[in-house]
Amino acid sequence: MSANAQALRLSTTQPDFEARFAQRLHWSAEQDDAIEQRVKSILADVRTRGDAAVLDCTARFDGLHAASMAALELKQSDFKTAFDSLPPAQQHALQEAAARVRRYHEWQKRQGGETATYRDEDGTLLGQKVTPLDRVGIYVPGGKAAYPSSLIMNAVPAHVAGVGEIIMVVPTPARGSIAAGGSNTPPALDGQAQATIDSVAKGERNPLVLAAAHVAGVTRAFTIGGAQAVAALAYGTATIPKVDKITGPGNAYVASAKKHVFGTVGIDMIAGPSEILVLADGSTPPDWVAMDLFSQAEHDELAQAILLCPDAAYIDAVQAAIDRLLPEMPRADIIAKSLNGRGALIHTRSMEEACALSNRIAPEHLEVSSRDPHRWEPLLRHAGAIFLGAYTSESLGDYCAGPNHVLPTSGTARFSSPLSVYDFQKRSSLIEVSEAGAQKLGRIASVLAHGEGLQAHARAAEMRLKP
Amino acid sequence: MSANAQALRLSTTQPDFEARFAQRLHWSAEQDDAIEQRVKSILADVRTRGDAAVLDCTARFDGLHAASMAALELKQSDFKTAFDSLPPAQQHALQEAAARVRRYHEWQKRQGGETATYRDEDGTLLGQKVTPLDRVGIYVPGGKAAYPSSLIMNAVPAHVAGVGEIIMVVPTPARGSIAAGGSNTPPALDGQAQATIDSVAKGERNPLVLAAAHVAGVTRAFTIGGAQAVAALAYGTATIPKVDKITGPGNAYVASAKKHVFGTVGIDMIAGPSEILVLADGSTPPDWVAMDLFSQAEHDELAQAILLCPDAAYIDAVQAAIDRLLPEMPRADIIAKSLNGRGALIHTRSMEEACALSNRIAPEHLEVSSRDPHRWEPLLRHAGAIFLGAYTSESLGDYCAGPNHVLPTSGTARFSSPLSVYDFQKRSSLIEVSEAGAQKLGRIASVLAHGEGLQAHARAAEMRLKP
Repeated sequence: MSANAQALRLSTTQPDFEARFAQRLHWSAEQDDAIEQRVKSILADVRTRGDAAVLDCTARFDGLHAASMAALELKQSDFKTAFDSLPPAQQHALQEAAARVRRYHEWQKRQGGETATYRDEDGTLLGQKVTPLDRVGIYVPGGKAAYPSSLIMNAVPAHVAGVGEIIMVVPTPARGSIAAGGSNTPPALDGQAQATIDSVAKGERNPLVLAAAHVAGVTRAFTIGGAQAVAALAYGTATIPKVDKITGPGNAYVASAKKHVFGTVGIDMIAGPSEILVLADGSTPPDWVAMDLFSQAEHDELAQAILLCPDAAYIDAVQAAIDRLLPEMPRADIIAKSLNGRGALIHTRSMEEACALSNRIAPEHLEVSSRDPHRWEPLLRHAGAIFLGAYTSESLGDYCAGPNHVLPTSGTARFSSPLSVYDFQKRSSLIEVSEAGAQKLGRIASVLAHGEGLQAHARAAEMRLKP
Repeated sequence: MSANAQALRLSTTQPDFEARFAQRLHWSAEQDDAIEQRVKSILADVRTRGDAAVLDCTARFDGLHAASMAALELKQSDFKTAFDSLPPAQQHALQEAAARVRRYHEWQKRQGGETATYRDEDGTLLGQKVTPLDRVGIYVPGGKAAYPSSLIMNAVPAHVAGVGEIIMVVPTPARGSIAAGGSNTPPALDGQAQATIDSVAKGERNPLVLAAAHVAGVTRAFTIGGAQAVAALAYGTATIPKVDKITGPGNAYVASAKKHVFGTVGIDMIAGPSEILVLADGSTPPDWVAMDLFSQAEHDELAQAILLCPDAAYIDAVQAAIDRLLPEMPRADIIAKSLNGRGALIHTRSMEEACALSNRIAPEHLEVSSRDPHRWEPLLRHAGAIFLGAYTSESLGDYCAGPNHVLPTSGTARFSSPLSVYDFQKRSSLIEVSEAGAQKLGRIASVLAHGEGLQAHARAAEMRLKP
């Protein structure tokens, strides 16, 4: 392995720091017109022809030639078989992770979102009613990003919210069937992560994903993917029930399809490349920080790993750790490309300045690798998740600490939040105006409605006034 | 006034009920490609040229020829002057409405959304930190839908959430400058609703909107509109600060622009035509129900007003009230077009069946016009706002009951919620794993990370394990 990772070294005291910093942060979700056109036509086809279109797309893009939709449906016994086939350590890890995620989200549910009302002095009742969504769809990628942890992070909050039905879609492309780049589904699974545990549909199924479906609980599941799966969930077909919301990550085709069906159904978010920002005061072993940067960089060449630290010697030590540890990493090439292309080691004047810079970045993952993390936490306004102290590696949060690992990327933490129980609930306002209340409110409403030129609004209020 | 309103009469016992019901409900937010192309080019122009593009667009679309951006900025004194010029009844109504909306949203804030943490048995700290957005933009239409109540409903929750800066944009087109249909801003204000209170920028300003800005509290405001205003807020210009989220209603150009910038900034929702569904048991005076249907229908020819009732004679009485009251209404033409084109009076077998149908519609506004509304409320799963009892006309909720009048339309109440304090806050997860916790969590994370082929994730967890 000859990969070499030399993340850009910056200092906030450099005269051109602002420009170089802005350039490094820049990432733009440019829409690919070719992808958009293909997605639009797939959506229209599934909307019109339903199951027939889904079968055609699945044959064309995934090389999976099914005689009927029934052949594309997974059974609960498939999940059970997959789970039973795992080594005990994996079974235990999946169950423990799901249990911890469930506990956190049950706590989160109690933090808010209960139905509640109150009466004001006129006897008018006001409040909000909180109800779970009826049915949601979870997209699980089948390609190189086939993560059972992602299924847990999407399905468990839906369950805790009380969603009645969870429909999973997961492409199981036939091995070698995917034309490079041209497909609307991800490339076939690679290496150890894949195994054919069932050849009925001749597709590649990931046993860990199926086992996670057993642990997390999925109502129905279909081995379909790409824009056709999003369309089937959004519009419904004879076989696939229409859902109220679609969550879960996917490739560019899936992201484009989700953006198109937004409004017909709810969606979670359109994620950009993953990011980590480490704020270090120099007290954490440099190897730990180097590995935390790697653990983000290994996701994707576009992933971004940044270190902010007021101690130049410590930054040198982290770079030395990077140099020493990189050759050991199986994904060294991806890590090197990510660190060279988008990484940065930034020397700041102080921890305070580092916190201020972090707020400008609004990172998805923010590690406060300090002996005194609670000193800095109050200064941090924008981040998807904040990992406090040297023992809190991002990877613990990714799998099993409890909070959700689906987080806002690309600075969207300035206005959005981690996936949560609340994303699987919705509120209805409750209003009951008493006769006395109607006398008071009616006069106000009448004046304002006349002012807006809406006379029927005014009359409706005035009719409730006593003569 | 010769308008005649004959809403479609249906009964759930008709053999073709399902088909006719589905046809009546159908509404599709077809994207207009011409609008989309124009919006894309305006967004790109503002992104590249900033203030210069905003000035050009404002001259071209609104007929407002300003020498500099300074001429397009409103001052706090403009708001104060507008407020002071209003009759005392309007001043009082605006203040009362804002105060009631504020009280409700303060209550709503306490229902959830506080920063909170807990420690599990290993000493690991978990929780979520809730913070307000830094800066939001509120779009206020300047045309026929120039509603001061809308500004209150958007600005007050933002204030209650703790948002630091609220930037308002409101087009003030020069009278007669708008080419019919071709403009990217709404048609000029009509009739009484408009008044030129300041001719500096030669645009038509709505004194009630400016007075509402005084009452609700707006940090800065610009007399710009259309896609160019959305672009300026999303990307920022030398004069207009970049915001984190844009809320507020607008025409097709504004809606398309908001959908495009979604991801760069947050947005509230893309609203369809407004709707009311009245569930009536026959105990409310028919005139009241007729006027409540009018108060929705008068918004827009595409607005939808539906009555569900198990009592055929009562439906006759409501139709008779419609016939009698319609000629008195200044907006009779719009009301008639809405009722004839999209309205329905539906005879159901029972109130239970009416509730079930209502859930399928998931209406924006749902009136339970019954002497026993709390009997039916538990059966109602999907609605933006539920108005309980005969005294609770929708118009009271629109202006001053307290809950927000920005509600999910077109069935999106199945998965989305009224605008709220929560829309102006965001959460960051907090995780602090103790040394003991890292021993337990590290083993789980290591197994799962190896299973997903992410070895750096595994190593980061393993490094924290004691030998």
